[in-house]
Amino acid sequence: MKHPGLWKMLTVAMCVALVGCLQAQELQGHVSIILLGATGDLAKKYLWQGLFQLYLDEVGKGHSFSFHGAALTAPKQGQELMAKALESLSCPKDTAPSHCARLKGQFLQLSQYRQLKTAEDYRVLSKDIEAQVEQEGLREAGRIFYFSVPPFAYVDIARNINSSCRPGPGAWLRVVFEKPFGHDHLSAQQLATELGSFFQEEEMYRVDHYLGKQAVAQILPFRDQNRKALDSLWNRHHVERVEIIMKETVDAEGRISFYEEYGVIRDILQNHLTEILTLVAMELPQDVSSSAAVLQHKLQAFRALRGLHRGSAVLGQYQAYSAQVRGELQRPDGFHSLTPTFAGVLVHVDNLRWEGVPFILMSGKALDERVGYVRVLFKNRALCVHHERNWAPEQSQCLPRQIIFHIGHGELGHPAILVSRNLFRPSLPAHSWTEVQEQPGLQVFGRPLSDFYAYSPVKERDAYSILLSHIFHCRKESFITTENLLASWVFWTPLLDSLDHEAPRIYPGGAETGNLLDLEFNGSHLSFSQQQPEQLVPGLGSAPRPSDFRVLGTRYRESPLISAWPEELISKLASDIEATAVQAVRRFGKFHLALSGGSSPIALFQQLATGHYGFPWAHTHLWLVDERCVPLSDPDSNFQGLQAHLLQHVRVPYYNIHPMPVHLHQRLCAEEDQGTQTYAGEISALVANSSFDLVLLGMGTDGHTASLFPQSPTGLDGEQLVVLTQSPFRPYQRMSLSLPLINRAKKVAVLVMGRTKREITMLVSRVGHEPKKWPISGVLPSSGQLVWYMDYEAFLG
Amino acid sequence: MKHPGLWKMLTVAMCVALVGCLQAQELQGHVSIILLGATGDLAKKYLWQGLFQLYLDEVGKGHSFSFHGAALTAPKQGQELMAKALESLSCPKDTAPSHCARLKGQFLQLSQYRQLKTAEDYRVLSKDIEAQVEQEGLREAGRIFYFSVPPFAYVDIARNINSSCRPGPGAWLRVVFEKPFGHDHLSAQQLATELGSFFQEEEMYRVDHYLGKQAVAQILPFRDQNRKALDSLWNRHHVERVEIIMKETVDAEGRISFYEEYGVIRDILQNHLTEILTLVAMELPQDVSSSAAVLQHKLQAFRALRGLHRGSAVLGQYQAYSAQVRGELQRPDGFHSLTPTFAGVLVHVDNLRWEGVPFILMSGKALDERVGYVRVLFKNRALCVHHERNWAPEQSQCLPRQIIFHIGHGELGHPAILVSRNLFRPSLPAHSWTEVQEQPGLQVFGRPLSDFYAYSPVKERDAYSILLSHIFHCRKESFITTENLLASWVFWTPLLDSLDHEAPRIYPGGAETGNLLDLEFNGSHLSFSQQQPEQLVPGLGSAPRPSDFRVLGTRYRESPLISAWPEELISKLASDIEATAVQAVRRFGKFHLALSGGSSPIALFQQLATGHYGFPWAHTHLWLVDERCVPLSDPDSNFQGLQAHLLQHVRVPYYNIHPMPVHLHQRLCAEEDQGTQTYAGEISALVANSSFDLVLLGMGTDGHTASLFPQSPTGLDGEQLVVLTQSPFRPYQRMSLSLPLINRAKKVAVLVMGRTKREITMLVSRVGHEPKKWPISGVLPSSGQLVWYMDYEAFLG
Repeated sequence: MKHPGLWKMLTVAMCVALVGCLQAQELQGHVSIILLGATGDLAKKYLWQGLFQLYLDEVGKGHSFSFHGAALTAPKQGQELMAKALESLSCPKDTAPSHCARLKGQFLQLSQYRQLKTAEDYRVLSKDIEAQVEQEGLREAGRIFYFSVPPFAYVDIARNINSSCRPGPGAWLRVVFEKPFGHDHLSAQQLATELGSFFQEEEMYRVDHYLGKQAVAQILPFRDQNRKALDSLWNRHHVERVEIIMKETVDAEGRISFYEEYGVIRDILQNHLTEILTLVAMELPQDVSSSAAVLQHKLQAFRALRGLHRGSAVLGQYQAYSAQVRGELQRPDGFHSLTPTFAGVLVHVDNLRWEGVPFILMSGKALDERVGYVRVLFKNRALCVHHERNWAPEQSQCLPRQIIFHIGHGELGHPAILVSRNLFRPSLPAHSWTEVQEQPGLQVFGRPLSDFYAYSPVKERDAYSILLSHIFHCRKESFITTENLLASWVFWTPLLDSLDHEAPRIYPGGAETGNLLDLEFNGSHLSFSQQQPEQLVPGLGSAPRPSDFRVLGTRYRESPLISAWPEELISKLASDIEATAVQAVRRFGKFHLALSGGSSPIALFQQLATGHYGFPWAHTHLWLVDERCVPLSDPDSNFQGLQAHLLQHVRVPYYNIHPMPVHLHQRLCAEEDQGTQTYAGEISALVANSSFDLVLLGMGTDGHTASLFPQSPTGLDGEQLVVLTQSPFRPYQRMSLSLPLINRAKKVAVLVMGRTKREITMLVSRVGHEPKKWPISGVLPSSGQLVWYMDYEAFLG
Repeated sequence: MKHPGLWKMLTVAMCVALVGCLQAQELQGHVSIILLGATGDLAKKYLWQGLFQLYLDEVGKGHSFSFHGAALTAPKQGQELMAKALESLSCPKDTAPSHCARLKGQFLQLSQYRQLKTAEDYRVLSKDIEAQVEQEGLREAGRIFYFSVPPFAYVDIARNINSSCRPGPGAWLRVVFEKPFGHDHLSAQQLATELGSFFQEEEMYRVDHYLGKQAVAQILPFRDQNRKALDSLWNRHHVERVEIIMKETVDAEGRISFYEEYGVIRDILQNHLTEILTLVAMELPQDVSSSAAVLQHKLQAFRALRGLHRGSAVLGQYQAYSAQVRGELQRPDGFHSLTPTFAGVLVHVDNLRWEGVPFILMSGKALDERVGYVRVLFKNRALCVHHERNWAPEQSQCLPRQIIFHIGHGELGHPAILVSRNLFRPSLPAHSWTEVQEQPGLQVFGRPLSDFYAYSPVKERDAYSILLSHIFHCRKESFITTENLLASWVFWTPLLDSLDHEAPRIYPGGAETGNLLDLEFNGSHLSFSQQQPEQLVPGLGSAPRPSDFRVLGTRYRESPLISAWPEELISKLASDIEATAVQAVRRFGKFHLALSGGSSPIALFQQLATGHYGFPWAHTHLWLVDERCVPLSDPDSNFQGLQAHLLQHVRVPYYNIHPMPVHLHQRLCAEEDQGTQTYAGEISALVANSSFDLVLLGMGTDGHTASLFPQSPTGLDGEQLVVLTQSPFRPYQRMSLSLPLINRAKKVAVLVMGRTKREITMLVSRVGHEPKKWPISGVLPSSGQLVWYMDYEAFLG
């Protein structure tokens, strides 16, 4: 998630954009708004109403307007369709009916339908606008093109606008896009590149209509206006968790052709819920009304997100979905879709403010209620002396403390901001937010409404009317910039890829779903609380699970072999290491453990870090089996894996940690720096007889172990304890314990995991002692014990 | 809390004790039980009834009994008093009345009063027992002396028993003591030593009657019988907090002479609640019925307790208390007691199982209800998809998950063990514990009783009858061994000392107390949730608080001076360091910070570790200003303070940490190991121009700074960047940055705190540049900035 380059580009772009914006805004004149897809659903439902609201808000303030409804439909028919849409425009409650009726008449006069199909149509449109402006003796201020059309049509339209419909010098162009903005990182990037060839970044407004919802739009102003109270609370020391939730009761029926391609993560989580996440998590800019600062801080928040993995998410699909797909998309009888209609995702923000705080994003269709909210739950660090029946909501710190941005629907039925009374009395803009009336008996988020300071908007406004106003006023912070969009896709795409063939859990939908979709998080894993029940539909049968098998004990190369499913294998190895450690500390007061790098041990590190309370870390010395000749701080360094997955979680004293000295005097593995001698000396000084209590090795597909590769001129025999070696892979230079040193250990464990190891496993099972060809075959502790740990994929293929 | 020596002694003692115990137990014969203080309150209320119960339980099983009530009262009067006490003995419900009446008759016959005053009285008693045994043709099995007398009488009685009343060879002696067992560590040790001169450890039974309460006695068996379910739950990953609570409604009236001397911590927390704490926190022995193993694990738990400090506790006193003291103890009108009648204490158990889990001990008089319980609350890691009204208690992981050992009283009114139904169905011994009947409408611990698997004892038994049975059966795990007692006092005494002159918060008592005593914990600090209200009684006026003053800015030695109360000073220094760090990282990508050791910086480290989210730790390099020539792992090493209070809490990459190389080639600060050159080389290589961004110094009462002492031949001038020096204090050898290197820094902060620095502060304010005499006077950055941070005590005296 690091894009310093992108980031610099953005800063520059933003500055340019905003300066342009402000300059343009000062100049008044004629504004043409072209609604592309003027007879479509979105236009009928929200956009015309939003444009009318814009007209109501802006008329008489110096600009003049014309509204062009456009579509592919022929003029006459289009005209009729549009007239129908306009007829139903409603007047806002706070406008006098007669005044509104008059303005509505004006608005209808200013609005006309126009077929836009060919390049010529666009040229004509542009000419007509120019003519109109000239005829009326006005100056042209700018043009807004609103793309309410399917994404496949974007590029053609964009090309036409760019080549034929740009306003003259001194007037601005703004183009507005609706999601989806791509399907993954690659497609989003392609689309962005294409659009970028027609428009400047400053000209583009990508709509996420959630950013126009009143409770969402209030998140940053709320954080700003309550800085004093939130300053000490809005961090990992006080926040227990953050929930960002969008539940629907409807299902996808009628929208299957779209939904089957996108699914709930692309439809809701990647955009709406992620945008909200950044608003909650970002560092608060000094000036929250600065678009540039807000967008910059948003990008910073993206950079702090911990990468998602398959265990970060759970997926569900309502039971009727596959049948709907078969119906709407004419799929055969046996067809079962894997598209999720429900998802829960656990997100961590890896910075000092949020480290360890779970952010849970959840959305689904066919659930028990329709509601959207962000809930920030604070930790309970109080003990109340009196019996709970005597706790007072204003005072008792033992009652739940939460701040809720209630986006809409649910029991409340309207947007709201709720702050538990035992937190603080929030400050909200008095002209636009007002205290909610008591509603006796109403329970929200586990407490009576009266437990909260509760505010709702004085006037409920539709998201689109707010966003149209922002577009008009050039407020870019409510829109998705290209960088923002790509950062979001960079974050989501690996997860989407890894879930591609994952079967979602089937749920009946509605109230019947019961506890089936309840989630639990643990560390960075999210899972369903209930074990997988019997499948509700046939055909999605699951693979055998680790618990279906027992650990298999036998022999490999005449040494004990432990074989199991990966999870169980790691668990067994961790227990064995712990037992060895406890025994060593009991007998000798310390435990010398030498660890290999690579990916297999990472699961082991995690297991040791979280599951083993009795591990005598304070008396454990950690050594490296091998290291790459890169600075310790390099992500490629073996030491880094150890640090990130183990050292960060357990308390090993600093002076018991022994990284290999590959980086001395600002050089890497220079012979003359004598790093190998230094390490050997350290081992001799601290480890009795240079005999480690336990050495953990791996085995490469070429039969290498530690960093001892086939045909290595050093390390396979001789006196040297620590050697420099050459790897066939980058980085080529390595430092490694030698075979003779490894073979002095009291115990050697070799961990081999994964299907790719199958061949070498088979081969090595047959060869004798040939370390020159297969270094692993030279591992044979002279008086210690050797144990092989192999998972079934490596061992049984 | 480390007593390996004591621990070994105990192991040996326990083995001896238990062997003796078992051997003795096998031999049947006559048992004499002597109740000292037979006409006192405790005897009347519990002990006679307990002895009768013991007789009911044991009669007919091979032993014969005699019961001797003893006191100082003359025979006739004592006999009458005792007869009165015995008259009121009641029969247990599960014994047939006629059977019980017969046995009660027998019991009364076997019980007789005896005046025990002089040494001669004891000799006569022993003779009489021998005569009786011989006369009845029995073998003597043993004698139990129960000390139900004030502690001042212990030693005389013990001496008499030891010299005149020991049974003959082959029979055992058991002496039973009631608390208080001392007033602090010293007095407890004195008492233990005195008693130890008369009795073997194996002969002594110190009663903590809470260990006989059924719900408490069941803690270990419960943990044992539910090992499988608890194995993964009983640790810091799952437990949110543990509350150990004993609330009383009564006040201390009538017991003031005792209470005024002891207070709530000595009366309840040091003994009862601490014992419970160890039962909850200890590692579970393989065999929980092994007294030796239980006692061993209890001691281990004591060793893991983090030391308490003044901030670990809050104290209260009910409003009427001082008047009661004036009344009962004839104190003058203006007298106000400081004895606490309420205390909350935050305890941490510093091992891998419990690290970070708050254990809150709380007890008080004159509260709103009478209740005692242990509540283990588990973390909520679930998100439930459905609306909360649809959550099912058995299944929903979103409802509270808790295990409660309900000691007694409260709404339940009886001992009970409660386990939330969403946890697991517990296993309890079916013959002695049974499921509690539904009680509609009853809410316990925030939930309806029906949310719990709830069990209560089949038969409620008084604690004393259980403990008497344990004494008889030689089950030592329910009693306080000498080691256990002293470990507890070692834990509590420093806190008691530090609270000695602390004014408790006055509370009205009963329901009126409201939220006044509610507690909040944060890190290792416990405080009242509410700010101190106006005093309810006059005369306990508090000292001025830091917030009453503002940070004072002026100049000292011609450099800026920041002066404030300690808390605020540290807070200001931390902020200044953070600002410097942010600026350095912004400009140069990294921040080089050199830190001093000692006690003043520890508060700073803690502040930086917990309060500064924006601190760029990942880009910060930490250097040492000076170091003592001891291994880094030595508690005296400056590096240790840094590790314990800062590094453990923030994520500074391993390779950005630069301890001084005082320990090379297994030697300390040997010239030929060139540690100073190595460190200087590291500084030159990593720090541009060897100019640290910030150096933090202190000032000694002799004017030393870093480890540059007056008259030092090295380090005060010259070319060397890092030098070896000599301290007038142990350890004499030091490594230090030199003055010339310090003076190259961009910024130098000198932190001076505490009254002891007053004189040198004054002196140094007047002297010129005389580093030979006062090394601190040589601190003058050549192009950087010097700032003094002094607290009011150092600066104003």
